[in-house]
Amino acid sequence: MELTRPYRSKKYGQSLRANSWLVYFYGMSTVTIAPLSEILPTFLDSVDFSAVAVIVDNHTFRFCYSELKAMLPKHTLVRLKAGEEQKHLATCELIWDALTRANFDRHAVVLNLGGGVIGDMGGFCAATYKRGIAFAQLPTTLLSQVDASVGGKLGIDFNGLKNHIGVFQQPTAVLIDPAFLATLPERELQSGFAEVIKHCLIADAPMWEEVRRRDLNEQDWPALVAHSVEIKQRIVEQDPTEKGLRKILNFGHTLGHAVETHFLPQPRKRLLHGEAIAIGMVAEAFIAHQKKMIDKVLLDQIEEYVFAVYGKARLMEEDEEPILALTLQDKKNRGREVRMSLLNGPGSCAFDVPVTAAEMRRALAYYNG
Amino acid sequence: MELTRPYRSKKYGQSLRANSWLVYFYGMSTVTIAPLSEILPTFLDSVDFSAVAVIVDNHTFRFCYSELKAMLPKHTLVRLKAGEEQKHLATCELIWDALTRANFDRHAVVLNLGGGVIGDMGGFCAATYKRGIAFAQLPTTLLSQVDASVGGKLGIDFNGLKNHIGVFQQPTAVLIDPAFLATLPERELQSGFAEVIKHCLIADAPMWEEVRRRDLNEQDWPALVAHSVEIKQRIVEQDPTEKGLRKILNFGHTLGHAVETHFLPQPRKRLLHGEAIAIGMVAEAFIAHQKKMIDKVLLDQIEEYVFAVYGKARLMEEDEEPILALTLQDKKNRGREVRMSLLNGPGSCAFDVPVTAAEMRRALAYYNG
Repeated sequence: MELTRPYRSKKYGQSLRANSWLVYFYGMSTVTIAPLSEILPTFLDSVDFSAVAVIVDNHTFRFCYSELKAMLPKHTLVRLKAGEEQKHLATCELIWDALTRANFDRHAVVLNLGGGVIGDMGGFCAATYKRGIAFAQLPTTLLSQVDASVGGKLGIDFNGLKNHIGVFQQPTAVLIDPAFLATLPERELQSGFAEVIKHCLIADAPMWEEVRRRDLNEQDWPALVAHSVEIKQRIVEQDPTEKGLRKILNFGHTLGHAVETHFLPQPRKRLLHGEAIAIGMVAEAFIAHQKKMIDKVLLDQIEEYVFAVYGKARLMEEDEEPILALTLQDKKNRGREVRMSLLNGPGSCAFDVPVTAAEMRRALAYYNG
Repeated sequence: MELTRPYRSKKYGQSLRANSWLVYFYGMSTVTIAPLSEILPTFLDSVDFSAVAVIVDNHTFRFCYSELKAMLPKHTLVRLKAGEEQKHLATCELIWDALTRANFDRHAVVLNLGGGVIGDMGGFCAATYKRGIAFAQLPTTLLSQVDASVGGKLGIDFNGLKNHIGVFQQPTAVLIDPAFLATLPERELQSGFAEVIKHCLIADAPMWEEVRRRDLNEQDWPALVAHSVEIKQRIVEQDPTEKGLRKILNFGHTLGHAVETHFLPQPRKRLLHGEAIAIGMVAEAFIAHQKKMIDKVLLDQIEEYVFAVYGKARLMEEDEEPILALTLQDKKNRGREVRMSLLNGPGSCAFDVPVTAAEMRRALAYYNG
């Protein structure tokens, strides 16, 4: 757990609790992991904001906003329906309209209180309102705490394609309160855990050994959150707009995103993001093994642990071709060539590896087999 | 004309004609002023783009695209209706959809061939497609050559508010062919000229003396374009996201934008951007004089020249309050305090000057008087 040693906050000029972390990299957002009752008022006092908006969905309105309300100054509340299917332009128009009607100027700040949908979409709206105002991510799900809130990828879905429209823009701050994890259904926790597994597999072999020996309910969440944030910040810092290295964060995501997008319009079969990424990690680990980039031991480890945590999803034969077609829209591609980020050992990952449709077909068959 | 001496292009590794300019500032887009037949093929060869899109409106399709077509590689043409009233989200959806259907990846480039509307909106769509792809501005109007294409302000109108949604993003290149100016109706040339006047007034007193002694039809356009671009680049380089100094480029624009926006829904009274800015410059020069920032001589010069070039618009009494209300949405404001960029001498401009509604009311009355 070397990466997650406790820090003292220097930036905010006051000490945080001993069990809180401050993850700071040059040129990146400061990520603070501590109770919001300590860090949110400090953040709001640190800049002379002209106005404050809080964006929530129905879930975070009920379970998280109530906790926060008392520590917030006068603010504009923007309450949205929950769900990935809300992450589109029409919802952005609601947000922009709310900021406009409240006469928000360029010195205002938007607090995005929610999971990846609220963070990505609220961040995109803030980054484009009057060409950009300040925003802070207050992630409430494990998935958004370990992944979406960090790294400045913002955006919305478009014509059924995930995060197709967006920008790179670092948030003013990321304020993570692990206590919110207690508000999550187990399925949500399990979904976010996929990104934790991914971070270990691409960048920290010893941590992978630790994590894979424990069940989901035996994990040390605050420590894992800090660990994932530190790995992600370290990678993003070297390549903020994903010209190269940052692509390794997409391990499991080429097929994973395609599977997720494919099932999005089918409410009964719809998968959570991490559930789809879990499928993608097994299938892409198989491709890496076929290409002799990883050995059978690692492939088996990944498969065994993923199936133990997530079970095995049922992909039907008729799902295969639409899933392959969707990989053509992957942002890492060059022209019509699909390029993946593939493990080349435990704790190590290569990027821009060309993969053929036949290889992907075999990988989906392997997953199903 | 010291600022507009001819350069040799170093970046593209081949000499441009003696009457072409290359305006380059560190961290900014390279702006090249020369016939497109020379600079466009060189630009397209300089990067290994995976695909090319050209965005035009009905005017530039007819008058400019025909000139370019032969020198372009295989490309996707996106043809839009012309006009400021098209500069909204629904048109962005058409553009994003065209790029998606053509399977554009992150290595593609968008060429925006048109005036400010095409440049601002096409640039915004490129800057947000898959979180940002390359784009080049090929401005065809005087207004976009001297102003909109340079500086990386991108965006669209929203709920009737000008450029309310957008981002700052420097284009990959700005390629300016002054020959396009010959395709413009005189009213368009006159509109763009307002930004030339503005650049002289805020940053170059000797040039103001030169320009104001000549009629519109006696001006040296290629030289004025290079002069304006150089002034704008110099200012933007010091403050790309308009935290301070860049605001001086907004002289004339607080009241000018409000006047333009107010008349936008009234087709018969609608003003071109520069026509509105001309009104704004006279009114804001009056405010500067009232605040003892400039003397009566400069105010009279500005008023006399603007009226000689643009005539005098008729603002009715019932227009006054809606115009003042619109100034509250100006991006330079702080809360409900309107802040203007006001001249404090010929060739010099201050920013963040608080202005009251009463002062603006007197200024509009002065303009009308």
